[in-house]
Amino acid sequence: MKYQQLVAEINKKQSLLCVGLDSDIAKLPSHILKSDDPVFEFNKQIIDATVDYTIAYKPNLAFYESLGIEGWKSLSKTIDYLKERYPQIFTIADAKRGDIGNTSKMYAKAFFENMNFDAVTVAPYMGKDSVIPFLEYENKWVILLALTSNQGAFDFQFIQDKETDKKLFETVLEKSKDWGTKENMMYVVGATKAKMLKDIRQIIPEHFLLVPGVGAQGGSLEAVIGNGQTKDKGLIINSSRGIIFADQTEQFAQEAKKQAKNLQEVMANYF
Amino acid sequence: MKYQQLVAEINKKQSLLCVGLDSDIAKLPSHILKSDDPVFEFNKQIIDATVDYTIAYKPNLAFYESLGIEGWKSLSKTIDYLKERYPQIFTIADAKRGDIGNTSKMYAKAFFENMNFDAVTVAPYMGKDSVIPFLEYENKWVILLALTSNQGAFDFQFIQDKETDKKLFETVLEKSKDWGTKENMMYVVGATKAKMLKDIRQIIPEHFLLVPGVGAQGGSLEAVIGNGQTKDKGLIINSSRGIIFADQTEQFAQEAKKQAKNLQEVMANYF
Repeated sequence: MKYQQLVAEINKKQSLLCVGLDSDIAKLPSHILKSDDPVFEFNKQIIDATVDYTIAYKPNLAFYESLGIEGWKSLSKTIDYLKERYPQIFTIADAKRGDIGNTSKMYAKAFFENMNFDAVTVAPYMGKDSVIPFLEYENKWVILLALTSNQGAFDFQFIQDKETDKKLFETVLEKSKDWGTKENMMYVVGATKAKMLKDIRQIIPEHFLLVPGVGAQGGSLEAVIGNGQTKDKGLIINSSRGIIFADQTEQFAQEAKKQAKNLQEVMANYF
Repeated sequence: MKYQQLVAEINKKQSLLCVGLDSDIAKLPSHILKSDDPVFEFNKQIIDATVDYTIAYKPNLAFYESLGIEGWKSLSKTIDYLKERYPQIFTIADAKRGDIGNTSKMYAKAFFENMNFDAVTVAPYMGKDSVIPFLEYENKWVILLALTSNQGAFDFQFIQDKETDKKLFETVLEKSKDWGTKENMMYVVGATKAKMLKDIRQIIPEHFLLVPGVGAQGGSLEAVIGNGQTKDKGLIINSSRGIIFADQTEQFAQEAKKQAKNLQEVMANYF
């Protein structure tokens, strides 16, 4: 997907919402388990119910891989459904991949060719040649981890470089921002670190940020938008469990819709 | 697999060799492509030909994922074959996963329960809570990235901490070494950085190291063993392309065997 298409969808829906499809089979409503492919059926109903308020979906690969071949099938069907039914929606494989060049090339093939995702999340530890192969696809995106939403972010991401005084996540932003452009790179910045968004915008004033951690992880929507928005908005704000598991009965899709609508209405105040 | 079982196999075979199953379908011998599952058939023949000289196999997930569901099937069959036929062999899912706790838990389930791998490679960027879920399985292993074999290793892994003067990969070793023990954690250290192994052994004197980069990437076997070995050897040295694609004709398995034997014979000098 092109940058301008994403921005158009954001403005049309007055939404920055990404729904995280962390579709844990152990948490699916029991009636769904009777269908042939419960995970796909669940995703389909969540997508249909929330799509009016949503600009992106983000399947979390771990929940699919944990089911083996069946999970991979559910994932394939989900991305195919999204691309056929809602081609204007941005799709993110939350896979946190990254390896030496010849291997990253294969991961890029997996997510951009074999499946037709628009974007994949990538871990920065192995440096430039682990990221570049993903950037060689036209209209496809890398979303590089910068500052994550979890407690473990404090283990390494804040280490200060002796030479530059910059924290590791700042160095990741500085070094990588020229590997691609704002039209094919985004960054993960956790909502739990929303106060840091102003400083981050000094380094990358225009790149989109994928912001997890609103909801179950405790991040504030207002702080994220207030501190992180650009003239094109520049934010994709993810909520997973807070939407998809808001209700675990036969009403789950209706409840997911309500939660997505609530978030979109707060977001609309910034348009 | 238990630490002592791995050490016993190493001593029995006088080998530290891990064969990397980077089984790129585009490089398979053409006669193999006629079989029902070419990637599995190739792996099976490579395994049978090299197992006398080998203590571990390491499928590289990217090459399987790039083939979608078919690739996942080939991978499952490969690990099942290894576990049934050669249960004494250590098996590594080279997946470089890592995510927030509830997600890493699902990756652990994928590789340790759904598939029966002994170990999975994990990226450290997201810190402790992204690693711990993998350590909660008995007799299963995390192999954490420390110092990788690629050029991109120089982008971030050598950043020096202002407070401690330590390089990032040293901090990763220092901080993480107490998350598990030498009986459930190993580290990736690239053979292309073999000179650093002596310093690394100051930090982690006993943990096993998984060492990629011998062969196609240019690392020296002698330098790795000379600088990195412990009293239990403590090294698993990987070769992928140099063995599995040494020959791409109908003789591929025989040639792979020859290459594996050559490496094992050099390794035997250190026993």
